[in-house]
Amino acid sequence: MSLFVTFEGGEGSGKSTVLKQVNEILLSEGHSTLLTREPGGTPISEQIRNVILDKANTSMDPRTEALLYAASRRQHLVEKIWPALKEGKIVLCDRFLDSSLAYQGGARGLGMDEILEVNRYATEGQFPDITLFFDLDPSIGLQRIAANAGREVNRLDLERMTFHEKVRASFQKLASLYPERYVTIDASQPLEKVVEDSLKAIKAKL
Amino acid sequence: MSLFVTFEGGEGSGKSTVLKQVNEILLSEGHSTLLTREPGGTPISEQIRNVILDKANTSMDPRTEALLYAASRRQHLVEKIWPALKEGKIVLCDRFLDSSLAYQGGARGLGMDEILEVNRYATEGQFPDITLFFDLDPSIGLQRIAANAGREVNRLDLERMTFHEKVRASFQKLASLYPERYVTIDASQPLEKVVEDSLKAIKAKL
Repeated sequence: MSLFVTFEGGEGSGKSTVLKQVNEILLSEGHSTLLTREPGGTPISEQIRNVILDKANTSMDPRTEALLYAASRRQHLVEKIWPALKEGKIVLCDRFLDSSLAYQGGARGLGMDEILEVNRYATEGQFPDITLFFDLDPSIGLQRIAANAGREVNRLDLERMTFHEKVRASFQKLASLYPERYVTIDASQPLEKVVEDSLKAIKAKL
Repeated sequence: MSLFVTFEGGEGSGKSTVLKQVNEILLSEGHSTLLTREPGGTPISEQIRNVILDKANTSMDPRTEALLYAASRRQHLVEKIWPALKEGKIVLCDRFLDSSLAYQGGARGLGMDEILEVNRYATEGQFPDITLFFDLDPSIGLQRIAANAGREVNRLDLERMTFHEKVRASFQKLASLYPERYVTIDASQPLEKVVEDSLKAIKAKL
């Protein structure tokens, strides 16, 4: 049975690590999966992403960026996600629509409704079946990131804290707007427990 | 006084030639103008356009393309058109929103309403003050293009005729939907007369 699962959350929430472990367990149990992440490794999506991330493009308008993210998402959906769902796979996707809603729509102030409108065109109303939201106090997330890089939390990290708090608040708002597909997972728990909670949520829908 | 004028029509309609002549006359009369065309020469818009036109990107989905055109248009608007209008210039733009509506929305069947929705986000509702539509029987347009290339009209030209007829019908529909900004110009007339009609339409709004 096909299922479209997205993994969402702030930096340092551990979602990418959890995704890999969940994938291995599902594979070992005989499920067929597609592990993917935006921009999904499709050449067109990658080209679009390169335009977004090009450091020379400092004059990029936020709405230009939102349209480019939507374009890249569209191509990823058409070339990889929809074909995998059609083959009956479980698609595990690291970040999707909700990252645009939380980061651009919420934290950067473009408005969730407007970002949703652009993305509705891109996705033709395709939402994930489940969105696992790895909820974590951003100060813990930043400590994890700094520790992984072998350094202390610095002034710049702290300056960005307000932004990361807005991202978290935006995901929490999305979880309350879409209770039918959102599952909030306490990402401060030990990795083993986070993986277990994630698997339980996925299996409940299978 | 600032004025946003777009030049629209099918291939071979002569709009680009007319645009240059109109610009020279306006300049000679002391007006301040910006002559531009999509993607407008802004580095970000050009990068986006390169993704659209890359011949290797045969798998590009039509909605991806529509989102990319909208993104490119947004950046052109923010970086060039809006600043010029703010400085009180007459902006003469070779193709804009209506080309997406006619080519993608109409002729290629994506739906004008949907293309308009995506572009409304990109342009924040900015429409041209005047849209000059250079209306011409596509068979004449194709003859002009072939003649300019020093060749006869060929089988491929003729195969594309249905498409060009749809483009024309789409522009005609837009002219009836937006009578307040559309001026239809008979592009089968001698160039001198087409330029004269165009100038008259622009000056009526100045």
